[in-house]
Amino acid sequence: MLQQSRRIIDLSLDIYPGAPTFPGDPACQFHVHETIASAGYNLTQVCFGTHQGTHLDASFHFADRGRTVDRIDLARCVGPATVIDLSWKQPRDAITVADFAPYESRVQPGARILCRLGWDRRLFQPGYFSDFPSMTVQLAEWLADRKIALIGLDTPSPSADQSTEVHQILLGAEVVIVEGLAHLDELPSDEVFFVAAPLRLRGLDGSPVRALAVAW
Amino acid sequence: MLQQSRRIIDLSLDIYPGAPTFPGDPACQFHVHETIASAGYNLTQVCFGTHQGTHLDASFHFADRGRTVDRIDLARCVGPATVIDLSWKQPRDAITVADFAPYESRVQPGARILCRLGWDRRLFQPGYFSDFPSMTVQLAEWLADRKIALIGLDTPSPSADQSTEVHQILLGAEVVIVEGLAHLDELPSDEVFFVAAPLRLRGLDGSPVRALAVAW
Repeated sequence: MLQQSRRIIDLSLDIYPGAPTFPGDPACQFHVHETIASAGYNLTQVCFGTHQGTHLDASFHFADRGRTVDRIDLARCVGPATVIDLSWKQPRDAITVADFAPYESRVQPGARILCRLGWDRRLFQPGYFSDFPSMTVQLAEWLADRKIALIGLDTPSPSADQSTEVHQILLGAEVVIVEGLAHLDELPSDEVFFVAAPLRLRGLDGSPVRALAVAW
Repeated sequence: MLQQSRRIIDLSLDIYPGAPTFPGDPACQFHVHETIASAGYNLTQVCFGTHQGTHLDASFHFADRGRTVDRIDLARCVGPATVIDLSWKQPRDAITVADFAPYESRVQPGARILCRLGWDRRLFQPGYFSDFPSMTVQLAEWLADRKIALIGLDTPSPSADQSTEVHQILLGAEVVIVEGLAHLDELPSDEVFFVAAPLRLRGLDGSPVRALAVAW
């Protein structure tokens, strides 16, 4: 494996002051802390919310007794993933169990599922944080029952209409939710090796990530 | 490859208010932004320096015209790596070309080298940021000439005594430097698949990372 030629596909959004954030979230800020003139090197203070850009949710995001982001098993966040193409979905459409049924054989315990809606293309359009296709509660339960390890989406959340319920069902089953993915259309195959490793932010609810895929 | 059993080894330090930082760097801060009582979910503002904990340096850290962290080729940061065990080194020892000579056949263009000093065990001891074994300028030039892709160390910097020169030589050759690694003694082999992907912090000098190894 180590010797084979491989390609890395970046699946992440840029982080910068002014970068889009979920309404009400902290704005991203960069503060110059040292410069080559002041100290011999450039160094910056970065401030952002735990759900800035491409990021993942820990159970503690929606449950005070839930697992925090530093305690997530990295084996959930790193490994083979299946890409499900639902890029034909329209704004505010429901994403249902029927949409996942053709892929049921791959929705196994420990599976990582990447759901491609193509929504990252709308990042700078008005409805990005509100009008995305939304997972139904029934689909969240179906995925939780199947004990998948991770679901990733190129929308800012798995559900606009039933966000709390869908998050609670998935996170309650320890399913890692990766939100705000990008460029899923650049993946060369529907089976890739996926990496989205959170920072070890002690006791927190989520973390920005550099999500990427390795294709051989 | 995708079906083989695999194990993830976490190589990263915790990030939290009070976590050790290089003298003069911004202190890490967490600010509660929303709670389940206030908004239905927990959400936090995180502030830290670009070189907090386990992190990587971009060329811009030591050169105003250098490559910024969002522009680093991820293929440098993700792939097979060779672990070199120098854990017998004492505080303030020099790390020299002679130390790397036994591994010369693996120090090839594009190689990723992880240098195990065992220094992470001293994280909370007084000399952690000052007394670590230091790479010589000659070793930095030797690694740069061999066009390695990345060097990772469990010290907070590759050099205490000649930090600027060593950084400039390595970063000037586009060698990614990963600093503040941990737990390199837990790797099951001296050949692993390594991941240390920076956040896409636009225009900045470095980024905290969740470094990890995949072993098959």
